[in-house]
Amino acid sequence: MRIVQKFGGTSVGSIERIRKTADIVAAELAQGHQLAVVVSAMSGETNRLIAMAHELSADPAKREMDALVATGEQVTAALLAIELQQRGIAAQSFTGAQAGFRTDSSHVRARIQHIACDHLVEHLEHGGVAVVTGFQGMDEKGNITTLGRGGSDTSAVALAVALQADVCDIYTDVDGIYTADPRMVPRARKMQRISYEEMLELASLGAKVLQTRSVELAMRYNMPIHLRSSFDLTPGTMVTREDESMERAAISGVAYNRDEAKITIKGIPDHPGIAANVFGPVAEAGINVDVIVQNISEHGFTDITFTVPRNDFRSTMAIMERVCAEMDAKSVSGDDSVAKVSVVGVGMRSHSGVAQKMFDVLAAERINIQMITTSEIKITVVVDEACVESAVQALHSAFGLDTDD
Amino acid sequence: MRIVQKFGGTSVGSIERIRKTADIVAAELAQGHQLAVVVSAMSGETNRLIAMAHELSADPAKREMDALVATGEQVTAALLAIELQQRGIAAQSFTGAQAGFRTDSSHVRARIQHIACDHLVEHLEHGGVAVVTGFQGMDEKGNITTLGRGGSDTSAVALAVALQADVCDIYTDVDGIYTADPRMVPRARKMQRISYEEMLELASLGAKVLQTRSVELAMRYNMPIHLRSSFDLTPGTMVTREDESMERAAISGVAYNRDEAKITIKGIPDHPGIAANVFGPVAEAGINVDVIVQNISEHGFTDITFTVPRNDFRSTMAIMERVCAEMDAKSVSGDDSVAKVSVVGVGMRSHSGVAQKMFDVLAAERINIQMITTSEIKITVVVDEACVESAVQALHSAFGLDTDD
Repeated sequence: MRIVQKFGGTSVGSIERIRKTADIVAAELAQGHQLAVVVSAMSGETNRLIAMAHELSADPAKREMDALVATGEQVTAALLAIELQQRGIAAQSFTGAQAGFRTDSSHVRARIQHIACDHLVEHLEHGGVAVVTGFQGMDEKGNITTLGRGGSDTSAVALAVALQADVCDIYTDVDGIYTADPRMVPRARKMQRISYEEMLELASLGAKVLQTRSVELAMRYNMPIHLRSSFDLTPGTMVTREDESMERAAISGVAYNRDEAKITIKGIPDHPGIAANVFGPVAEAGINVDVIVQNISEHGFTDITFTVPRNDFRSTMAIMERVCAEMDAKSVSGDDSVAKVSVVGVGMRSHSGVAQKMFDVLAAERINIQMITTSEIKITVVVDEACVESAVQALHSAFGLDTDD
Repeated sequence: MRIVQKFGGTSVGSIERIRKTADIVAAELAQGHQLAVVVSAMSGETNRLIAMAHELSADPAKREMDALVATGEQVTAALLAIELQQRGIAAQSFTGAQAGFRTDSSHVRARIQHIACDHLVEHLEHGGVAVVTGFQGMDEKGNITTLGRGGSDTSAVALAVALQADVCDIYTDVDGIYTADPRMVPRARKMQRISYEEMLELASLGAKVLQTRSVELAMRYNMPIHLRSSFDLTPGTMVTREDESMERAAISGVAYNRDEAKITIKGIPDHPGIAANVFGPVAEAGINVDVIVQNISEHGFTDITFTVPRNDFRSTMAIMERVCAEMDAKSVSGDDSVAKVSVVGVGMRSHSGVAQKMFDVLAAERINIQMITTSEIKITVVVDEACVESAVQALHSAFGLDTDD
């Protein structure tokens, strides 16, 4: 098999961890696989570099930030190559530019255009291990670019696609995706497989395991991702195309996000364009609005409720008080102790009544649903933060996800 | 004027020092000059990177060491560019590869082959400052290479030659070349000018101010070097072609090196090849032999005396005891408390009697000369270390170098 492995910052965060990572690489190589290894900067290094730049300037030029932080992965790649060579493995480090990552010129958030990886293929076919810096590339003028935070996952998947690898192994500090947070639901199970779509819905719920961009890319090219732990080598969770032949349960997992706040504007004189008036200033402030519910207009007035990340609650409230006055709305109120609970699963498409069952379960637990939003494979409710735990546990159990033991 | 400035590790060793360096760059730019700035890694950074590699491997692959340590200058270049932009200066950082430094493939001690700097010229001509990583380049296969320790001076001079700059300003923590060490000779004077040849002789005496390679390069292309302090902006010392029109003194300066040890082998049966027998094993051990004196053979036996760096005294003695036994020589003796004192000056070529005068001065001071070696523009004697100070002071005074005040 040809495999692209990706190791994040904690997996290469110290000399000792680099040795452990080399153990994993060496073990896979001994299986006869061809290996390209994508690495992040040592944990803390990127922040150290950024802090130096910010000592000099509140708004450092993006081109120079890219040149600066790209050194982080270069250091890791060279160190891992040194450690692998130390074990007699023909390893070589490659910067993004050397590995052939060509990107556009959008510094600090560049997009990969293509990967000219013929020489990497040659290196792999001669039994060598290519250690490649994640997160970075080069534009057509030869400037160093970076893909933005979390871009190393995207680098790994893109490289796997370019190398026509069989799988992209992403090593992290968790050992897979669970049917629910195991800290909250002791009977949660590790999923053997999850579809790209479900993974994307989980990511939108704040699961920081895989960067959304990398999952989208994997889905587009049907590249299987094996999400696994760099601390033990048990199989993790495969993120793959939905398997039509599989009998599946209505839902695959229950997720939650406590990091939510809710804001309601009441009595807005209803006419076209009010949504733009309300959300324009929020977007300009760089705040991501999540769930939005607008009630049916009554007597020419309507109410709008929406959620934002809890950190942005105060600033959003300030914006809304101004907007409310401008729009002649009746009142603005907010609650920064709400949370989202979601059930996710491609099985929802073929099972009816999932939403009704979810509402019944929450009613039986006497949990008040404040907002509801749905997608094809996800149902999300906003509830009082105090109810999150009982909601998640009850749903996990009711949808048959608990382990037997 | 078009100027290449070079700042070493201490001049960019902290955020505060980077700001001071930007002050200097900005002041020169305000004079209307075109500027390319060559920077070293922040002081300590190269050693930090090397230490990590050595934690992994006693003998890390040279290609990877280059990729690793090249990040040091890249960080400095990006930070200085950020600081300059912060002041409204159109600065951009360039890695060695981006600046067009093409080298051979001798990792960790690469030689510059040429510099493809058209785009740098364009950048300068548009009023931009190019901040270039010293010490590094790229070979024809795209591998990152480094020039070896001290290579940043060489990078700066090479870039000055390629850019057809008017001068290469090398900023260090000393403010110029003195007629003698000012700590030892209070009446030493800063030289306004010194010839390349004299600078090379001083470098061979252990003056660490300029790397020999960079002076050789400057001499070959007749590129003036302005050696000056990054702590104050008074003029330093110009290193230039010898100025024929100038009336000059017999010698330009007095130098010394305490870091010496002397070894004598007596009674070596004299036949062809004995020098190779004696010095071969020393060279194999990586020890640099400096002054060598071999006496005329008497009755088929000869004596050889030579000096080595004091740190290598013990290991050289051990080698010599073995060699002496093999060669049937009579005895080996050593003295690790000797020092070299030299007078240097291109004026020596036109003034006769400099050597005689030197010996007279030392005799008057009752200093015993243990060894003598000469070049066209330098006379060096080896003396007891205890006599260094009085020797240097007496020579400085006798050759008319003392300041009047």
